[in-house]
Amino acid sequence: MKILNIYVRKKKDVGVIERELEVHLQTDHALLTETSMHLLKAGGKRIRPVLVLLAGEFGRYDIQQLKYIAVPLELFHSASLVHDDVIDDSDKRRGQDTVRAKWDNRIAMYTGDYIFAKGLEIAAHVDNPRVHQILSKALVEMSIGEMEQIRFFFRSDQSLRDYLLRIKRKTALLIAISCQLGAMVAHAPESVSNRLYSFGYNVGLAFQIRDDILDLCGTEKEIGKPPGSDIKQGNITLPVIFALQDEKLRPHIQAELRRIHEADGQTDVSRVLDMIRGSGGIERASALADRYIAKAIAALEPLPDIRAKQDLIQVAYFIANRSH
Amino acid sequence: MKILNIYVRKKKDVGVIERELEVHLQTDHALLTETSMHLLKAGGKRIRPVLVLLAGEFGRYDIQQLKYIAVPLELFHSASLVHDDVIDDSDKRRGQDTVRAKWDNRIAMYTGDYIFAKGLEIAAHVDNPRVHQILSKALVEMSIGEMEQIRFFFRSDQSLRDYLLRIKRKTALLIAISCQLGAMVAHAPESVSNRLYSFGYNVGLAFQIRDDILDLCGTEKEIGKPPGSDIKQGNITLPVIFALQDEKLRPHIQAELRRIHEADGQTDVSRVLDMIRGSGGIERASALADRYIAKAIAALEPLPDIRAKQDLIQVAYFIANRSH
Repeated sequence: MKILNIYVRKKKDVGVIERELEVHLQTDHALLTETSMHLLKAGGKRIRPVLVLLAGEFGRYDIQQLKYIAVPLELFHSASLVHDDVIDDSDKRRGQDTVRAKWDNRIAMYTGDYIFAKGLEIAAHVDNPRVHQILSKALVEMSIGEMEQIRFFFRSDQSLRDYLLRIKRKTALLIAISCQLGAMVAHAPESVSNRLYSFGYNVGLAFQIRDDILDLCGTEKEIGKPPGSDIKQGNITLPVIFALQDEKLRPHIQAELRRIHEADGQTDVSRVLDMIRGSGGIERASALADRYIAKAIAALEPLPDIRAKQDLIQVAYFIANRSH
Repeated sequence: MKILNIYVRKKKDVGVIERELEVHLQTDHALLTETSMHLLKAGGKRIRPVLVLLAGEFGRYDIQQLKYIAVPLELFHSASLVHDDVIDDSDKRRGQDTVRAKWDNRIAMYTGDYIFAKGLEIAAHVDNPRVHQILSKALVEMSIGEMEQIRFFFRSDQSLRDYLLRIKRKTALLIAISCQLGAMVAHAPESVSNRLYSFGYNVGLAFQIRDDILDLCGTEKEIGKPPGSDIKQGNITLPVIFALQDEKLRPHIQAELRRIHEADGQTDVSRVLDMIRGSGGIERASALADRYIAKAIAALEPLPDIRAKQDLIQVAYFIANRSH
């Protein structure tokens, strides 16, 4: 993602966002600044802010307004990651210790609360009530999704639909509203912001499916954490759901899931990873991700042919092929 | 509180708030509905919504507008309680099992996130950007306060100032903005909403000081949890700070605090409670609470002599004398 042209073309404004993120997370409270900055410095692709900026080019682009939505969206994303790491007992993210591993679960919970509230404070500069309505609805859905994922841990009886609803809430909605709200803040017509929502939504689904595939197929170097982390936590992802549809494999995978569950994830998962990799589930999941990418690009079709449109298509293709 | 006349006079509108709270916490997600309702049904005095309603009487009173700020303020309060229970390892609140005790810490964390997001969704109906700015700033301060309390656990070297800043963030700010925002949503003049803020702020400080006294002096029946819970958690409250100022007592209290800390709170605290009760610290804390009550009532002085003003004074006196 770092190598994409967008980061070159938008370098100045991405820099503005980066500085705002840093400035806003400074507090008088040393520990809170440290935990927040730890999270921020762990990097990430700032994909949500970049989408806000690109969407803003479909209207009256003003970085001084767009930052009030780009910065909060990155902060809401970060806050949800810290809380997720508590639930998942994750020790590594993006190759670095998580807040809960470096400090503890309670500190991670409060760091998440703080980053979340900071995001709200910055978003409060936007005076369009519709923006706040869309944002808050998405945040409610995200929080339901957080709880929902616990319910489905280790459950082999879940459907494709269960999975899609989960990744909608976990990932796709926030990416969708990044595009939509960027356009809205720039006063683009509603037809445009709706199309951009649709683009972001489909890109978001593809992004999460790719992420889930990488967890099963990537190396620790590529993904910044040990492969198979999802299955150790009981997070049943799309390739696993597809693999479970194979009647011969199903009982073997179920037995492995039970064994992993009983061991609380503290066990070798290479056998079940091999089963999934050999099942064709990865390829089917990958094909579905590609379909969402195609839908995302199709949503952009009627939009004016500006540079940002080409950049969004580039983002979509990047996600389709990403390996980290 | 339940016996106050306000609850009789405002019965209909308090009922509106109560129903809105219930309706909004219903989700498709059974567990989330259950945990949220568990919290809601545990009761509480709905003091923040009541203050919103009373403050609204200083402007153009409209329950259909006021509810959009009264309901969120109660929800933000509830969300902070669930997260606090995680930090404090609390098993009882208002005489009932806490969410973390009945389910677990992770479920409590996500229940808090959900209730918080729901509050935002409802508040998004208010289209005055200033309301959102005040609200979000207070939420940031509250989240800093959450982290701050961890830092001061078991520390006998903290000052009165440290304590006051902590209870400002923990309690006083949210009560202050309940009064302020109720007036703002009802389009009362700024001079009025500022006075009401000041009233709420001082009442909030007194309220928390009383709460902290009750934890040291109340019976389990009165306070809905075992007395001495604060000191077991390492939460050093005002009477303890005053008691520590007695040079003869200080080393004995410090030794007790070390012992309790080493036992992780799993020990008898009756000796240190006796020391504090005998130190005059309770009386000094009580006198300070009374001073804040007097300041709160003084803040109301220039406001028009409407019924709500008498009710607010009644609330202040109730808090000054509360025993549960």
